[in-house]
Amino acid sequence: MEKEKNEKNKKLPKKEEINEWYPEVLRKAEIMDYGPVSGCMIIKPYGYAIWEHIQKYFDERIKKLGVKNAYFPLLIPESLFSKESEHVEGFAPEVAWVTHGGGTKLGERLAIRPTSETIMYEAYSRWIRSWRDLPLKINQWVNIVRWEFKHPTPFLRSREFLWQEGHTAFATKKEAVEEVFQILEEYRRVYEELLAVPVIKGLKSEKEKFAGAVFTSSVEAWLPINRFSQAATSHHLGQNFSKPFEIYFYDKNEEKQYVWQNSWGLSTRSIGITLMIHGDDYGLVIPPRIAPIKIVIIPIYNAKNKEDVLKYAQEIREMINKLVRDDEVVLDDSNDTPGAKYYYWELRGVPIRIEIGQRELKDKSVVIFRRDKREKENVSIKELSKRIQELFEDIHKYLYDKALKELREVIIPVESLDELKKVIEEKKAGIAYWCGSVEEEENIKYVTSGAKSVNNPLEGELERLGIKKPKEKKCFICGKKTDKIFIFSKCI
Amino acid sequence: MEKEKNEKNKKLPKKEEINEWYPEVLRKAEIMDYGPVSGCMIIKPYGYAIWEHIQKYFDERIKKLGVKNAYFPLLIPESLFSKESEHVEGFAPEVAWVTHGGGTKLGERLAIRPTSETIMYEAYSRWIRSWRDLPLKINQWVNIVRWEFKHPTPFLRSREFLWQEGHTAFATKKEAVEEVFQILEEYRRVYEELLAVPVIKGLKSEKEKFAGAVFTSSVEAWLPINRFSQAATSHHLGQNFSKPFEIYFYDKNEEKQYVWQNSWGLSTRSIGITLMIHGDDYGLVIPPRIAPIKIVIIPIYNAKNKEDVLKYAQEIREMINKLVRDDEVVLDDSNDTPGAKYYYWELRGVPIRIEIGQRELKDKSVVIFRRDKREKENVSIKELSKRIQELFEDIHKYLYDKALKELREVIIPVESLDELKKVIEEKKAGIAYWCGSVEEEENIKYVTSGAKSVNNPLEGELERLGIKKPKEKKCFICGKKTDKIFIFSKCI
Repeated sequence: MEKEKNEKNKKLPKKEEINEWYPEVLRKAEIMDYGPVSGCMIIKPYGYAIWEHIQKYFDERIKKLGVKNAYFPLLIPESLFSKESEHVEGFAPEVAWVTHGGGTKLGERLAIRPTSETIMYEAYSRWIRSWRDLPLKINQWVNIVRWEFKHPTPFLRSREFLWQEGHTAFATKKEAVEEVFQILEEYRRVYEELLAVPVIKGLKSEKEKFAGAVFTSSVEAWLPINRFSQAATSHHLGQNFSKPFEIYFYDKNEEKQYVWQNSWGLSTRSIGITLMIHGDDYGLVIPPRIAPIKIVIIPIYNAKNKEDVLKYAQEIREMINKLVRDDEVVLDDSNDTPGAKYYYWELRGVPIRIEIGQRELKDKSVVIFRRDKREKENVSIKELSKRIQELFEDIHKYLYDKALKELREVIIPVESLDELKKVIEEKKAGIAYWCGSVEEEENIKYVTSGAKSVNNPLEGELERLGIKKPKEKKCFICGKKTDKIFIFSKCI
Repeated sequence: MEKEKNEKNKKLPKKEEINEWYPEVLRKAEIMDYGPVSGCMIIKPYGYAIWEHIQKYFDERIKKLGVKNAYFPLLIPESLFSKESEHVEGFAPEVAWVTHGGGTKLGERLAIRPTSETIMYEAYSRWIRSWRDLPLKINQWVNIVRWEFKHPTPFLRSREFLWQEGHTAFATKKEAVEEVFQILEEYRRVYEELLAVPVIKGLKSEKEKFAGAVFTSSVEAWLPINRFSQAATSHHLGQNFSKPFEIYFYDKNEEKQYVWQNSWGLSTRSIGITLMIHGDDYGLVIPPRIAPIKIVIIPIYNAKNKEDVLKYAQEIREMINKLVRDDEVVLDDSNDTPGAKYYYWELRGVPIRIEIGQRELKDKSVVIFRRDKREKENVSIKELSKRIQELFEDIHKYLYDKALKELREVIIPVESLDELKKVIEEKKAGIAYWCGSVEEEENIKYVTSGAKSVNNPLEGELERLGIKKPKEKKCFICGKKTDKIFIFSKCI
């Protein structure tokens, strides 16, 4: 934990150089590091602790909905993987194939799971017999490999990532469709309540839906690299898998019925989205509810008062330990200068810094520095616990509101493809009434050099977030009457 | 959850047919299922919940020791994997190789991690610079693939399994060696305090140590298939990896030093060991501290008193909910017969069954059936909470003591290779003073048709467990003077 003193005054201009800022800050703050294989990164303890917060939060929520965790094999035989045709078409170009075990060539190639529909549903077809076996709600927290050839970006686009994948089966379409949106709401909660990231709930277009789904819903976040990012997805699979996989049950009238299925996933991409959105020129800004270190205490002393100041700092630490876990507070009593310590802990995005010197010792107070606004205030120790709790709430709210303001400002109503082209060139997103046709989406992509439809926000969603709606209820390209609104932008 | 009524009286003779009993009971009790690839099984929710208990317990313990979780890539380039010669020799025959990404042949083959020393230590060599960076203590909870060609057994021998692997680096040999035994003690706690399985702490022989280790310590458990099973291992790697991987630091005198390293792991094998040891002719017997369902309530009613009995059962359930989590209690009010319900929940090893009928309703009491001894008792509801807590402790102790008795009885002192041969033929284990030579161990294996050294129990361990020691302090094969005692048996 040696502080890099010579760098203490170096700022990292975020807005101007976001493509350098992002990986540099993540590495310097020890969130991640590169591994020997391109696109397969190391999640370091300081980054993994964020994932543990996300896991704990979401895992508790879905268990309350009756979802149970399990583990299915990593390796899927090629023949099984190929059983649903749209699905294999969508994923085959990105599969990493195992061909040898030890020195022996395998009889059949094995896919490293790019998602687990096929291996899970082969089992579901054996496990589900009667209406009593439904609903079946299983989740797993696992690693995934998708061998993409696009330029990798830590957390946002990597060949291996961690996620949870929920796979549920119901007796009726109604129950299944209800669950799609129940889970989507849980994803919104993760982002908004835990990560302080506003997201738009909506439906993907026909072209952008999951390979094999009837429809895909998503939460989408706007990133400072001027792109939307699919933050989590919840798919309704209908009977697209239950038919080829023969997943059926006998209902109460002893009649054979195919099940209705969903699958839904949230990945370590959520870490990248959060850190990219909230950071600033001084490094990371981690929202309090997921911060691995929530408070750092910096004693400021000279040879004469060192002992007294350190003793006082220790008292403050004990006071704080009633509020947060012991490993979430650091008392930095190393020999580095206060300036070097400030630099070090600001880079790491610790939400609250407490400074303690001679004056505070005398006053029975502390100086609190909040990382989000970079503002200081003096607080008496009587008020300390209360003030820290307020600040945690306030920092969360400030970060959320700031991100929401950016989201609102970046989405511009457009009424023609030309207008959309212009908006995309200005590195913003467009919003328009659109009929949703696949050919038009291909044209949009061509004309705008790569923009896609983000999603079709759910009813009430634009109002909730305060995003301006376009005016005329007709497709901005073909002019057909439609009441579907879509957002368009470059995406990662 | 339809009960298989026609099977309600079917017993599964455990002792006589253990090789059929084990996989049959695990599948029927829905602990696991087979997947499409041989040796790669599915851990079903009822089995995975046991793993979650083990994870929670051990994760909290190691975090108190300052260990932090992280995630390293699944795929290791062949060149990196081959950097430590003994290590690659030991693992290469079992590696699953990835050769293609999508349609493209990779420039270099990638190993699916059979263990993560090499990929982690490549990073450690970049992360460790100064004495201030030590100790470094990192753990990961991940999946592992070892492409063995031996006959697979669920949990005990499978091609893919889940584990934790801790990888630590220290400035001095002394600190590292101390940690080896600190972790070994934590493994003992997992088995004895959580899983009710007595284990022997000891050192592996030269032949049986980990590929690349200076020495390997282990906890070992005796299984009813007449074999010892390596239940967890803690290795001291010395500088065997730090030298080829160039992991060094500058000490307080600015001198360059190579680090001293350990690695240690506990896998889902622990689930197999626990279930195989404690089960009986009626199915699983799950120790209370890891039981996914701790209590099942069976109401016994007729058309006349159904409503009253169910109401009373609900009251009992609410009372119990103060003791255990809501999802750990089941009130089975399905339409199956009580007998079918008994069969179903006994097979699943639920530690406590509560039966409630007309008499109990009238008495304000319940009948408690404890799964371990299969004994019933009547308990007044005033005493219920207290009695349940006592029973949880008592069942744990009973299971542990029963397994310990078997362990004691099966280890027979031997004074010659002939005596060992006889003991192994009788499906027991031998214990003897032994010099530890690799050639003699090869001979032991040959003469006994496959027995190995289990471990050299740590000082005080045989006394602690009440295992008889052999007499003469000389090697039972070559007669050389030695004070090392080893246990020998067939192993899985």
